[in-house]
Amino acid sequence: MSAPHPIVEWTSSSSWAMIEDKFSPYAKETLAKLVHFMRDDVLPSVRVAHAQLPDDEETRWKTVLPVLEELKAKAKKLGLWNLFLSKAHYPKYGVPLSNLEYAVMAEVLGRAGHLGPESVNCSAPDTGNMEVLARYGSPEQQEKWLVPLLNGETRSAFAMTERFVSSSDATNIRTSIRQEGNEIVINGHKWWISGAGDPRCALHLVLGKSDPNNSDRYAQQSIVIVPANAPGVKVVRPMRVFGYDDAPEGHCEIIYDNVRVPLSNLVLGWGKGFEIIQGRLGPGRIHHCMRSIGAAQSALDLLIQRVTDPSRKTFGKYLYQHGTVIADIAKSRAEIEGARLLVLSAALQIDKFQAKGALKEIGIAKFVVPSMALQVVDRAIQSFGAEGVSQDQELAQSWAGLRTLRLADGPDAVHIQQIGQRELKRAPSLAQRTAEIKKKEKQLFEKYGLKPLL
Amino acid sequence: MSAPHPIVEWTSSSSWAMIEDKFSPYAKETLAKLVHFMRDDVLPSVRVAHAQLPDDEETRWKTVLPVLEELKAKAKKLGLWNLFLSKAHYPKYGVPLSNLEYAVMAEVLGRAGHLGPESVNCSAPDTGNMEVLARYGSPEQQEKWLVPLLNGETRSAFAMTERFVSSSDATNIRTSIRQEGNEIVINGHKWWISGAGDPRCALHLVLGKSDPNNSDRYAQQSIVIVPANAPGVKVVRPMRVFGYDDAPEGHCEIIYDNVRVPLSNLVLGWGKGFEIIQGRLGPGRIHHCMRSIGAAQSALDLLIQRVTDPSRKTFGKYLYQHGTVIADIAKSRAEIEGARLLVLSAALQIDKFQAKGALKEIGIAKFVVPSMALQVVDRAIQSFGAEGVSQDQELAQSWAGLRTLRLADGPDAVHIQQIGQRELKRAPSLAQRTAEIKKKEKQLFEKYGLKPLL
Amino acid sequence: MSAPHPIVEWTSSSSWAMIEDKFSPYAKETLAKLVHFMRDDVLPSVRVAHAQLPDDEETRWKTVLPVLEELKAKAKKLGLWNLFLSKAHYPKYGVPLSNLEYAVMAEVLGRAGHLGPESVNCSAPDTGNMEVLARYGSPEQQEKWLVPLLNGETRSAFAMTERFVSSSDATNIRTSIRQEGNEIVINGHKWWISGAGDPRCALHLVLGKSDPNNSDRYAQQSIVIVPANAPGVKVVRPMRVFGYDDAPEGHCEIIYDNVRVPLSNLVLGWGKGFEIIQGRLGPGRIHHCMRSIGAAQSALDLLIQRVTDPSRKTFGKYLYQHGTVIADIAKSRAEIEGARLLVLSAALQIDKFQAKGALKEIGIAKFVVPSMALQVVDRAIQSFGAEGVSQDQELAQSWAGLRTLRLADGPDAVHIQQIGQRELKRAPSLAQRTAEIKKKEKQLFEKYGLKPLL
Amino acid sequence: MSAPHPIVEWTSSSSWAMIEDKFSPYAKETLAKLVHFMRDDVLPSVRVAHAQLPDDEETRWKTVLPVLEELKAKAKKLGLWNLFLSKAHYPKYGVPLSNLEYAVMAEVLGRAGHLGPESVNCSAPDTGNMEVLARYGSPEQQEKWLVPLLNGETRSAFAMTERFVSSSDATNIRTSIRQEGNEIVINGHKWWISGAGDPRCALHLVLGKSDPNNSDRYAQQSIVIVPANAPGVKVVRPMRVFGYDDAPEGHCEIIYDNVRVPLSNLVLGWGKGFEIIQGRLGPGRIHHCMRSIGAAQSALDLLIQRVTDPSRKTFGKYLYQHGTVIADIAKSRAEIEGARLLVLSAALQIDKFQAKGALKEIGIAKFVVPSMALQVVDRAIQSFGAEGVSQDQELAQSWAGLRTLRLADGPDAVHIQQIGQRELKRAPSLAQRTAEIKKKEKQLFEKYGLKPLL
Repeated sequence: MSAPHPIVEWTSSSSWAMIEDKFSPYAKETLAKLVHFMRDDVLPSVRVAHAQLPDDEETRWKTVLPVLEELKAKAKKLGLWNLFLSKAHYPKYGVPLSNLEYAVMAEVLGRAGHLGPESVNCSAPDTGNMEVLARYGSPEQQEKWLVPLLNGETRSAFAMTERFVSSSDATNIRTSIRQEGNEIVINGHKWWISGAGDPRCALHLVLGKSDPNNSDRYAQQSIVIVPANAPGVKVVRPMRVFGYDDAPEGHCEIIYDNVRVPLSNLVLGWGKGFEIIQGRLGPGRIHHCMRSIGAAQSALDLLIQRVTDPSRKTFGKYLYQHGTVIADIAKSRAEIEGARLLVLSAALQIDKFQAKGALKEIGIAKFVVPSMALQVVDRAIQSFGAEGVSQDQELAQSWAGLRTLRLADGPDAVHIQQIGQRELKRAPSLAQRTAEIKKKEKQLFEKYGLKPLL
Repeated sequence: MSAPHPIVEWTSSSSWAMIEDKFSPYAKETLAKLVHFMRDDVLPSVRVAHAQLPDDEETRWKTVLPVLEELKAKAKKLGLWNLFLSKAHYPKYGVPLSNLEYAVMAEVLGRAGHLGPESVNCSAPDTGNMEVLARYGSPEQQEKWLVPLLNGETRSAFAMTERFVSSSDATNIRTSIRQEGNEIVINGHKWWISGAGDPRCALHLVLGKSDPNNSDRYAQQSIVIVPANAPGVKVVRPMRVFGYDDAPEGHCEIIYDNVRVPLSNLVLGWGKGFEIIQGRLGPGRIHHCMRSIGAAQSALDLLIQRVTDPSRKTFGKYLYQHGTVIADIAKSRAEIEGARLLVLSAALQIDKFQAKGALKEIGIAKFVVPSMALQVVDRAIQSFGAEGVSQDQELAQSWAGLRTLRLADGPDAVHIQQIGQRELKRAPSLAQRTAEIKKKEKQLFEKYGLKPLL
Repeated sequence: MSAPHPIVEWTSSSSWAMIEDKFSPYAKETLAKLVHFMRDDVLPSVRVAHAQLPDDEETRWKTVLPVLEELKAKAKKLGLWNLFLSKAHYPKYGVPLSNLEYAVMAEVLGRAGHLGPESVNCSAPDTGNMEVLARYGSPEQQEKWLVPLLNGETRSAFAMTERFVSSSDATNIRTSIRQEGNEIVINGHKWWISGAGDPRCALHLVLGKSDPNNSDRYAQQSIVIVPANAPGVKVVRPMRVFGYDDAPEGHCEIIYDNVRVPLSNLVLGWGKGFEIIQGRLGPGRIHHCMRSIGAAQSALDLLIQRVTDPSRKTFGKYLYQHGTVIADIAKSRAEIEGARLLVLSAALQIDKFQAKGALKEIGIAKFVVPSMALQVVDRAIQSFGAEGVSQDQELAQSWAGLRTLRLADGPDAVHIQQIGQRELKRAPSLAQRTAEIKKKEKQLFEKYGLKPLL
Repeated sequence: MSAPHPIVEWTSSSSWAMIEDKFSPYAKETLAKLVHFMRDDVLPSVRVAHAQLPDDEETRWKTVLPVLEELKAKAKKLGLWNLFLSKAHYPKYGVPLSNLEYAVMAEVLGRAGHLGPESVNCSAPDTGNMEVLARYGSPEQQEKWLVPLLNGETRSAFAMTERFVSSSDATNIRTSIRQEGNEIVINGHKWWISGAGDPRCALHLVLGKSDPNNSDRYAQQSIVIVPANAPGVKVVRPMRVFGYDDAPEGHCEIIYDNVRVPLSNLVLGWGKGFEIIQGRLGPGRIHHCMRSIGAAQSALDLLIQRVTDPSRKTFGKYLYQHGTVIADIAKSRAEIEGARLLVLSAALQIDKFQAKGALKEIGIAKFVVPSMALQVVDRAIQSFGAEGVSQDQELAQSWAGLRTLRLADGPDAVHIQQIGQRELKRAPSLAQRTAEIKKKEKQLFEKYGLKPLL
């Protein structure tokens, strides 16, 4: 028997066995390279990146981390670049990886927080934005905005969420996008615009209403490319997530105050905004989920190391010998394994039936995984005592990031309701099956001379 | 695109996609036949079987259900027989199905309570007993005891658990098995001996201590075949499970009072008892888990039908429009999907690495699945109101049966502790990996001229 | 310091401290007598009562348990009789106990299953029926039906729930009650009619529609007294709760087939049915809750004894030294204490503001306590292994009984929704308070020369 | 009926009814004043205080908030000052309030984060430090260090937790405290020293080992008063809790590098350190719990306002009309009520039996309340969407603070284990009670001629 693939040690033998035969040789090789790159280069760089980010409120938003740029150069050289962009869907720019194949890589990337994905140019929101530009952008838009993103030279933002309204219902959007001659004028108040704080951020994809009175509520919105440095783009402040500012990319509050861009910056066409955001979501959610599983697995590994650390004994015992630690570990392991298989099966479903044919699986993953990961990370925090909530471990920041996933791209409740409603649609066929069974049951009662059921 | 396999409607498209390419054509065809047999024959027979079982305390233990015997005859004709017995391990008697392939069938069988498995001769404890006899039995033992079991002419019991001691620790076993001349004499007090109440029960496999002072604690036990009608075999009473007696098979309290059997009834050899029970467990647990998932899926289907039933409206609304019903449905669906994938991956792991190489996966399935299924069934009960706890729905009895799975073959806590301990063994390699990362991290801090971390 | 009241050992020092000063000397003395009666007489009789109930399907429904009749005689002599009936509300028949005082006694009674309450004539459904007759009955009705119930000579049933409809919405009730000359004619199909199986059952209080077209939906129902032996009262079968029939009282399916009773059997008046059932519910729910807490406390006591039993050691350790047993015990204790205080505070609220002024507290208790108790009992079951689900321990039957409380008198979801809706009514006053705070906040920002908040 | 006490609106009618008769007229009046002070003065100041704290890393640690000083002046004038210090235990300095009476006030204070307690000079760690100095300090120590603290002129820190060791086991403490002539020399490395960042911090109470080889492990430690500005006291950095620094007080890492203080700074005597920390803990935990309940209640109030806000409608519905919001609200309310009663009963227990006689109740509160409050706050966060995790609502910071309570003063697991162990001590008396019952049961079986139980 040959040596197991290096991914086994990072995930599990049994989940790998379920999918190994669905991996191409290229994917297997790339995955192996990625695992080694993470272990040898990315993970040793995590705290370096932290140390290279200044505390100072001013300069931390203007910093490009040297260690990250080195990682990116190396990743490119290794062919570990833009792995998220599937050649099947994006023949011109993509790499020959299926959703399932990339999903496993996304988990690996998730073991190094933000640094993992960015070092291979696979970090949100750039990934979704590159997909939008690759799918819907004009050749000129692609040349100007997409290529530098694909090269990792620039970054980008996606401006959808608005302050003061429940923008999860897209019909509540208030930002105005209107044509004036050869220009488009944008006015709006957004917040939670990830990436907009980054000094390398070159463009915002801004969603707004171009036709607010259209009777088709899904044709009211359009998306335009706004250069980050256009006059009228006012970054108000970084929003904080449990106290973290996530510099340098940040999640910014932004006012678009009479921002003017050329008509050619319209993406796809007037009224196509809703169509674009729909197309942008499916696989991205799976990537988020897999990275979350990577974060959970990292937390479990930290937990195991902590409770077996001889220097942490109390009252003469290892920490794992106290209370419910071992049960916590077992449950964490089981929850990670189950969640991983769920997301992998969702990724495969996308490969087979497109995102539209995988809505159930994506929705389930979306509400199951973040809660699971939060729970595992919380257990790890508890094992570290106060150190667990501090800046000396990655756990608290990891928890805070995961917590936002229960809100982003639709809060848990939305996905839970959708899955529930979808299940209810099975009612008629279940009723029919039951009717057929009852009919035969009745025949059997008669055949055997039994008293009929009431 | 060809029509999806009929299993998809009974489980889910995404879990089937994960495993379809691991199914042989024979397995696919057999599975399709099984699904139709269940729908057309077994499910319509469930209440018939209930009606054919007398209430009377005496006769209900002496009844062979006519509808079941018909089902068995039809199943045999269809080639749906002894599906649990893998040809790979039991070339003489087995069918060419892997653990993974049979696992999916076990879920389907689990949708009809006890009737499903028994109608295709795949019901516990016979399955485990047939495996024991097929693997360890002498040719004579096989001829006399195994063949009728394989033919579905007799049934059997496995007598391990003892009253008054914690027999989950096998060294606590008190039943005595000793040789006297050409005979073996058995004395002991067992309970929870499933199947011993059945009028067709022909044999008990009895575990006892033949060498209680052997310094090797795992060589103290032996197993002998005891004819059910041997003098001295006293069935004291049926044990009840939440009030159910599970007649006619039952779970009986039995006293073996100077029971004598010929020496040839010893299985495998003196002191081999522990080895036999170890070999008996792994795959059987997976089958239990898959049947539990089938029970959970049935309960969810019932729940969906109940809350969409127009005759059950209250205050002008469907039940699903009240409270948290939709969320319950969504969570149930997600939990079933996750659990199913976990067990399937465990089954595949057994196929790849034998039960010994799949202990982690089996252990996880063992403590995750019954609790999951109990929760889903409980939600379904709640949707039915008082009817849900009554004899008019299968839910309460299903719940009671599932509840015992958190105790049987080792209580949850044992499996949780074992999985946790197993995870702790990863500590040294994690520590080594961390040390390597820290070393490189230190080099990077130096390279970039950063202040070293404390 | 004087010796603590004997109740302390049965509940807890801290909960008793919260309420002791609200107890009259009479209540304290009665409570002490009750504790001793339970310990010395009732608890030793529990298994005796089981043994006196025949297994035989026929005779078990015709049996009056000798040990119970002895307990009742002794209880009467001790003045431990009809403790549920508060003199404050029922001056003619009641005992001088507040709801709070009786609540503590109900917990004590709950430690002996059905036997506890019945031995002091405080068992459902008689308690609610006696309250109805004492409050709404005519003098003749009281003389004929109430007095024998108060004396413990007869028993009674309350016939509300109907088969085939969701009768939790009272407007779905189909039973017809109509006047014909000097008679009332009743036709209907009920089930889950507790107590109707008992050979001593003398009367059914039957709810039906007397004016189904009344535009006031709460004036359509009436209640009549139906003698249990009236022609046309057909007991179809006992409903089972899980596998239990709860003989001899049972929960029966009953068809009222043209049953005729004299006009004088109408309770309170035509169209008063809804008013009566409303008045019947509040305190009864609290009593159920307190008995459930008693059941949970009993289960915890059994659990503690089991895991400290030296004969139950496995692998050389006490059961409490394995896994999460100690944590389970601690959580159970905390949950029982919290639940007890909740119910006691609800009982006090009833004493202060009537049931109408305690709807929030009653509702909270109603959905919190049964789930809590189920969880504690389930943990105890787990500690007993298979014995825990069997007839040899009270745990499984206790669990089954508690499970029905999540359905009876309105399923959990109804109470949860009502409490949630009630909380939402606080929104306007919260908004007003917030507005006032914001106004002052604004003044402070101005005063200190700070930039106003957006 | 007179108007209800204003506390009813802030907690609940039913919990107040349980304790009202245990409140002195002075306590009732003080509580009423406090409620009004909170509503009229403190709550409008919360965001003012935030705005007065500079973002700048340097100045934010040197800031005394003007609005807070005004609140303190007003509170003093109103007699709302040092409410935590019970006259019963501290006759010289205390106010005539029981633990129970103050507990209710602590909940009220907890509704305004840090600002509430500090505005009435009741904030940790000063409260515990004042208790230590009032109980154990010499007259000179009291004059110099306690009086300014009581006056709210200075603040203080308690230096126990150490970096690199599990200091929850006090025998692991490494800080050295040794006498040199008339001086005491302190060397050690502490962290999580709350309050040490505050510019008004005047003193640290430092725990260290003065006699590390003493065979009595509880006599090895001593506590000394270290002036915050003593040479050798090096504040290394503020620790962060999630992303919060909790400036200006902070939780600091501190190195004591050959710090020298006069011998008179020793508190109570050599080897008395352990005794002092034991005495410091009990009631403080209850105060923490009550403040947490206040935080939970605030979060629930915010949640209710959010989901009833017409400007937050999505898809045409109020937020409360979606998903499980109403159930979340109901459960939150029930959990808060139950937790509040638990803590109040613990406070009463302390009043009756001292902290030593209330260890069970304190322990239960300690592990139940923070988890409960975290859950309620988390639900509120979810209702606010991304705003909930941001700096624009108090929820995320409240959550982070509550999270540390599951770690501080002993992690949950320690308290859970202690409560569980304490329950196990009931085993012998339970066994005895059971034996007595069994004995009488046996007599009854004989009396009634029943077959004995096995």
